[in-house]
Amino acid sequence: MIKNQIQVIAFDADDTLWVNEPYFQQTELAFCQLLEAYLPVQEVSQELFKTEMKNLTLYGYGVKGFMLCMIETLSRVSNDSASILLVNKVIELGQALLQQPVNLLDGAEEVLRQLKSDFRLVVATKGDLLDQERKLRKSGLQNYFHHIEIMSDKQTGDYQKLLKHLDCNPENFLMLGNSIKSDILPVLELGGYAAHIPYHTTWAHEQITDSIAHPNFLPLNTMTEIIKILKN
Amino acid sequence: MIKNQIQVIAFDADDTLWVNEPYFQQTELAFCQLLEAYLPVQEVSQELFKTEMKNLTLYGYGVKGFMLCMIETLSRVSNDSASILLVNKVIELGQALLQQPVNLLDGAEEVLRQLKSDFRLVVATKGDLLDQERKLRKSGLQNYFHHIEIMSDKQTGDYQKLLKHLDCNPENFLMLGNSIKSDILPVLELGGYAAHIPYHTTWAHEQITDSIAHPNFLPLNTMTEIIKILKN
Repeated sequence: MIKNQIQVIAFDADDTLWVNEPYFQQTELAFCQLLEAYLPVQEVSQELFKTEMKNLTLYGYGVKGFMLCMIETLSRVSNDSASILLVNKVIELGQALLQQPVNLLDGAEEVLRQLKSDFRLVVATKGDLLDQERKLRKSGLQNYFHHIEIMSDKQTGDYQKLLKHLDCNPENFLMLGNSIKSDILPVLELGGYAAHIPYHTTWAHEQITDSIAHPNFLPLNTMTEIIKILKN
Repeated sequence: MIKNQIQVIAFDADDTLWVNEPYFQQTELAFCQLLEAYLPVQEVSQELFKTEMKNLTLYGYGVKGFMLCMIETLSRVSNDSASILLVNKVIELGQALLQQPVNLLDGAEEVLRQLKSDFRLVVATKGDLLDQERKLRKSGLQNYFHHIEIMSDKQTGDYQKLLKHLDCNPENFLMLGNSIKSDILPVLELGGYAAHIPYHTTWAHEQITDSIAHPNFLPLNTMTEIIKILKN
């Protein structure tokens, strides 16, 4: 029985505990509209994605790298002809993104409240260190967690380090998150449990189309379903 | 005797284990020279510092925030008249800074080698998560450390969290670093030990001019002096 095995439950944060990707997408749309004089919105978006992929190993995940990529894209798309006023606008967009309120997703706090006394709860998220810490503080959820792990990436090796650090065996570990690529597949590969909570919007870089057949995979419709699985 | 008390030794990384600030300063000088048509180098530098301080709570420490601050300063100093080609140059400077080789400081590896078997060694550094991880990997020093803590800031509360996380009492903790403000004062305040290793160059934000009189303060001339203190 899974509920007798699990000791540590790790929660992804962005788009699992709170809204994130829609804010990025609003910012991206506003950015693309700034460049409509040069290229259609959809093509600017593709150019931005190219820039993000080119710089991913250098910048990592998070808003600051996203801002730098928007600026680089602005320059390229305009053939170095854009006014610096557009650069100012991009910086404003990025700074506003960093200061967005944190809106919890339905059921997030209820799930934490119900599981807190029976399991060690941790956050396992990637992104800018300071930004993720700030969002966690704003979320009001901090006290539910035993440990906060902000990771530079979420590949198998990164989870291996996390498990070592938490002194937890894979078979006692459950990860919950919205990204099949980052939250589910690497954890299953290590022999851990992974629960997928779909979110309506996923960044292209995180999209996976293959279906998963694995005994430790728990596809959920909503996060609160995990309570039944773990408490009944 | 301090050597009987210490269990965990934490090392600052930038300008303690390896060269950092001189690379930032070279980048800053190159940046200021880009703007010489608008303002003398020294004044551009002051404007950049103002921008950095304004954005510190938003961006935190690290190269990506520094890049964004250079771009913002460029725009302001030029009264929004600079060409976007200068923005491209700033991005090049920043990307080069992210790809600098890691040059170990004298004695760093020797100290780690000699202390590794008797103490739990950790890294306690601030900056961009991915960038600090990359430097640590490039340094070849990773295997000396039991734990790597990349902190969004190094104030008293941040060290408190670190100590809790390491399950270590302040009186069993020694921090080594080059910044009086970030590596020494907060640790002394908690009742820990702190050894200062001066570095010839310190960022203005980290400079402290008061002298320190505290029983747990160890002013060193070079890092290797700590070996005698802890092993004799």
